[in-house]
Amino acid sequence: MEAIIARQPFQLSEGQQFEKVARDIPTPEGHDVLVKVHVTGVNPVDTKTRQAPLNAKERVLGYDAAGVVEAVGDEVTDFKPGDRVYYSGSNQRDGSNQTYQLVNENYMAHMPEKLSFAEAAALPLTAITAYETLFDAFNISPEPQANEGKTLLIINGAGGVGSIATQIAKAYGLTVITTASRPETISWSEKMGADVVLNYKENLVEQFDVQNLSRPNYIFCTYDTDHYYDVMIDLIQPRGHIATIVAFKQNQDLNALKQKSITFTHEFMFARAIHGVDEYMYRHYLEDVTAKVDAGQYQTTLNSVMKGLTPENVFKAHEMMEAQSHIGKLVIEIVE
Amino acid sequence: MEAIIARQPFQLSEGQQFEKVARDIPTPEGHDVLVKVHVTGVNPVDTKTRQAPLNAKERVLGYDAAGVVEAVGDEVTDFKPGDRVYYSGSNQRDGSNQTYQLVNENYMAHMPEKLSFAEAAALPLTAITAYETLFDAFNISPEPQANEGKTLLIINGAGGVGSIATQIAKAYGLTVITTASRPETISWSEKMGADVVLNYKENLVEQFDVQNLSRPNYIFCTYDTDHYYDVMIDLIQPRGHIATIVAFKQNQDLNALKQKSITFTHEFMFARAIHGVDEYMYRHYLEDVTAKVDAGQYQTTLNSVMKGLTPENVFKAHEMMEAQSHIGKLVIEIVE
Repeated sequence: MEAIIARQPFQLSEGQQFEKVARDIPTPEGHDVLVKVHVTGVNPVDTKTRQAPLNAKERVLGYDAAGVVEAVGDEVTDFKPGDRVYYSGSNQRDGSNQTYQLVNENYMAHMPEKLSFAEAAALPLTAITAYETLFDAFNISPEPQANEGKTLLIINGAGGVGSIATQIAKAYGLTVITTASRPETISWSEKMGADVVLNYKENLVEQFDVQNLSRPNYIFCTYDTDHYYDVMIDLIQPRGHIATIVAFKQNQDLNALKQKSITFTHEFMFARAIHGVDEYMYRHYLEDVTAKVDAGQYQTTLNSVMKGLTPENVFKAHEMMEAQSHIGKLVIEIVE
Repeated sequence: MEAIIARQPFQLSEGQQFEKVARDIPTPEGHDVLVKVHVTGVNPVDTKTRQAPLNAKERVLGYDAAGVVEAVGDEVTDFKPGDRVYYSGSNQRDGSNQTYQLVNENYMAHMPEKLSFAEAAALPLTAITAYETLFDAFNISPEPQANEGKTLLIINGAGGVGSIATQIAKAYGLTVITTASRPETISWSEKMGADVVLNYKENLVEQFDVQNLSRPNYIFCTYDTDHYYDVMIDLIQPRGHIATIVAFKQNQDLNALKQKSITFTHEFMFARAIHGVDEYMYRHYLEDVTAKVDAGQYQTTLNSVMKGLTPENVFKAHEMMEAQSHIGKLVIEIVE
């Protein structure tokens, strides 16, 4: 089997430093499943992990995949060889930029029947992130009727997370307002189901007022949290809830949350993996994605496909992520 | 009627500047209730409001009261003259440091039959703050069984908010760990129902480990948030929720919330009053306090009574609040 590794943290400006290496195919034990990876997905977290300190002599990035079960550990009960599965995986283990991968069964689900491997690999990390934000952070109801009349604002509706968060929020009864500015991102966000798309290059508060939109109960920031911190606090309803997945560049004034008694979550989908708690929730959320895709409620957010697991393609994928302008999701096909 | 007013913001170090003035008893209109105030309560928020800019020529502080309905506006349906009521009120109107006060009916409830006016006046602001934190911020279940096995840590268990928050959390099934250090605060917090009282003068993380305590799902900070920010993040369970009622003195690193995907609320019980949204929740929570006191589930948190609504007593009460060492609650009796 083959894996794309990095031997040290590096910046893209230092040039391409990924390598392809040969490895032995591992044997799954316990709750592990050995997956033949057909497609690996690319996310902004890959680029952050690439730059983070490295505790081993090499690491394999890649935190989204779809593939076929090759073998299972002796404690695995819900998957068998031949099953088509998808998952994000754990940032505590080698990722999906390899031809075979060991994954704990709690992290995976059977992929939607309606989707290709590429379409499925586009979903797990972003969908889990959006589910955690909506259900674990915002505590929205699993009953769509109970969420009706409530509004979610998504900063950057056409990104990977924004694209699936829009669909999930709509399926669960929320009104969804997103931000975009280019014609292609506006139409993409509308295609994902946004009720209203606002132009982030113009004053957001004024657009809410001019269009007579309800102030959001929830705001999900997927882009430049420092830049949007004050305007989110200005826009949110009293006792509303703001979440972000984008780390801050500077310290912030938490007292700004007080006048409206605002709640703030720093969402991070690997928290359960890092701390080893409630990892079954990963499968739980992916099973809902599968059900809703097959019921025609969700569509894939796939928008770009690269062919071939090569160091050069992984490097180019990282460049595309760091440009921060990609629409929807990018994946790399390993098996054609 | 008489009111204790302040004509400008002032520091205690500038000396006593409250004045007693005579006013005409107002006539209630609409949803307002005219209350003859028997006891007014004192809270840290009085001292903060005393120092805040003043938009009128004078203001009346005091945000806790128990008294008797004297008259009602023409739209009031649930209260009638002679009813014994209690409330915190709104920081957008004159407060309870006066002999008669107008209060919107959404803000009040019938007081517990088991309590004196002084015992009742000790409860509203702190109870509403604790209910909002537990139910609106932490989203604990209204079903106590559903909360069993979950742990709440309260920083400063013997303060006014800590004392009632302990009782509410216990009534709703949580395990409650508090902090205290003096023998009298430790025994007070135990009397309020704390399962475990830790010494905040020693390392909290070590005490959790040595005593083999479950890490908290929720932490409610009622004292010096800056000081406890890092240790709360260290102690909290992954995907846990921290709330504070104490404003920060400096900006903080919100990225510290990321690794555990932590949620943070700046609780402020006047947010609904300031923004005019869902004020009926004040009455809703107070009605639960009344029911649980009369069922023997909650006890008053009253610990100190001053006699007589005089400028000197209000000033002395502010001194006691600013000392930050008061146990339970302090009230001022107006009608003996």
